[in-house]
Amino acid sequence: MYTYQRTIHFADTDAAGVVFFPNFLAICHEAYEESLSAAGIELNTFFGAHDVLVPVAGCTAEYLRPLASGDRISVVLTPRPAGADGYAIDYEIRRLGPPEKLAARVRTEHVCISARTRERQALPAPLAAWLAHDA
Amino acid sequence: MYTYQRTIHFADTDAAGVVFFPNFLAICHEAYEESLSAAGIELNTFFGAHDVLVPVAGCTAEYLRPLASGDRISVVLTPRPAGADGYAIDYEIRRLGPPEKLAARVRTEHVCISARTRERQALPAPLAAWLAHDA
Amino acid sequence: MYTYQRTIHFADTDAAGVVFFPNFLAICHEAYEESLSAAGIELNTFFGAHDVLVPVAGCTAEYLRPLASGDRISVVLTPRPAGADGYAIDYEIRRLGPPEKLAARVRTEHVCISARTRERQALPAPLAAWLAHDA
Amino acid sequence: MYTYQRTIHFADTDAAGVVFFPNFLAICHEAYEESLSAAGIELNTFFGAHDVLVPVAGCTAEYLRPLASGDRISVVLTPRPAGADGYAIDYEIRRLGPPEKLAARVRTEHVCISARTRERQALPAPLAAWLAHDA
Repeated sequence: MYTYQRTIHFADTDAAGVVFFPNFLAICHEAYEESLSAAGIELNTFFGAHDVLVPVAGCTAEYLRPLASGDRISVVLTPRPAGADGYAIDYEIRRLGPPEKLAARVRTEHVCISARTRERQALPAPLAAWLAHDA
Repeated sequence: MYTYQRTIHFADTDAAGVVFFPNFLAICHEAYEESLSAAGIELNTFFGAHDVLVPVAGCTAEYLRPLASGDRISVVLTPRPAGADGYAIDYEIRRLGPPEKLAARVRTEHVCISARTRERQALPAPLAAWLAHDA
Repeated sequence: MYTYQRTIHFADTDAAGVVFFPNFLAICHEAYEESLSAAGIELNTFFGAHDVLVPVAGCTAEYLRPLASGDRISVVLTPRPAGADGYAIDYEIRRLGPPEKLAARVRTEHVCISARTRERQALPAPLAAWLAHDA
Repeated sequence: MYTYQRTIHFADTDAAGVVFFPNFLAICHEAYEESLSAAGIELNTFFGAHDVLVPVAGCTAEYLRPLASGDRISVVLTPRPAGADGYAIDYEIRRLGPPEKLAARVRTEHVCISARTRERQALPAPLAAWLAHDA
């Protein structure tokens, strides 16, 4: 489990005055990047160095409450192992209070593939360690 | 059924060189806007005029093939009625060929609520007509 | 002068592997929002409450060094009064080091107008106070 | 001179109900991509094939009128040579009418550099031809 906090920015919103629904997923990806970074994994160099990609193969989102510019939020992220070559990540996005309110639940599914052959392959050790630590 | 075509732009991509996964949902929303517009419904004024909101309550996406800047795509959109006060929309995103390839499947779920009370309410007639026509 | 720090995220980048040039402006706007928030001004409610808008009338940017996902940056923001009804804001975006490097210089120009008549009008007192404090 | 038309989408807007100012630049870049594509230059492969980058070194924007979701716009793009190794591009963004209204003027400045050494270098022939044709 890893917790990421940030503020909703104007750039996250749309003309309905609240966060545009695809942007919840971008915010979850930020939390994922921070969680990897906290485990010493830098997205920018890690995948190239290990010759792998871990693309998002699927996602689901359930939107419970709108978020507006200026709202303080927390994203609680829990990775779930899925075989030797993948994982899912569950996210709970809460608007900090008082009172604190659950705003959305998101899940992303990731599959590890070779950058060269695009065949599935086992997670590199540091990624497996991150998964074991945060799960 | 409604078909929307566009080109993948640089702004849709990320440092992995392909479309950032949340942006598939933004592209689907463009197709939805165009489909409503083709039925005479302008997002910008319609909801205010009818005092309703139809927020996205949930979505799912399955990513099958990456898309790159310059790719020509089609988005085929099929709305599905879901009671008197909601609908789902299925999207198939294809990279135009030859050969044409399915790149992603997306579903968004929409619920019609009063802009004032936020209680569920029946779809305004023009939206019900769009749904009946495109389904 | 106000300093904002954040990390470059994957969502900020494009297929060239670095931050997409319009996103530097969005990052500057985040710094501006944080600076206003630190002065007790919430974008989300302030302008409606004072019946004014302060749209961006112009901007310039000079890009000196690319930024990549994972880079830690600081944005130093300095507002500059421009008459009774406007201001400019200068931003310096630095990649934190070592060594620290200037990555971009941005300026945005803002004009205060009535939300009703769209005529220029004097800055509301809290905004004038923020300007006097941070300039 | 090259003319690009498109519709303003919900994703372009922010909580002020109109296009977020950095997104005007992203829309201009779309017009640039389309203009290059019309000249047979695909951003996705061209720069890699010629081992060059043509990053945006600077930009200016003047915002004259807000644009809202659903607005039809045209972007008229005129490239301007700037030595053997660079060019500027002027953009006029108009909201199509009637009546047609100028919404923004944008300029981007581009410098051609070697992807390997990052030294300035002359424009590849197809890019020089595009510049001569559209200027």
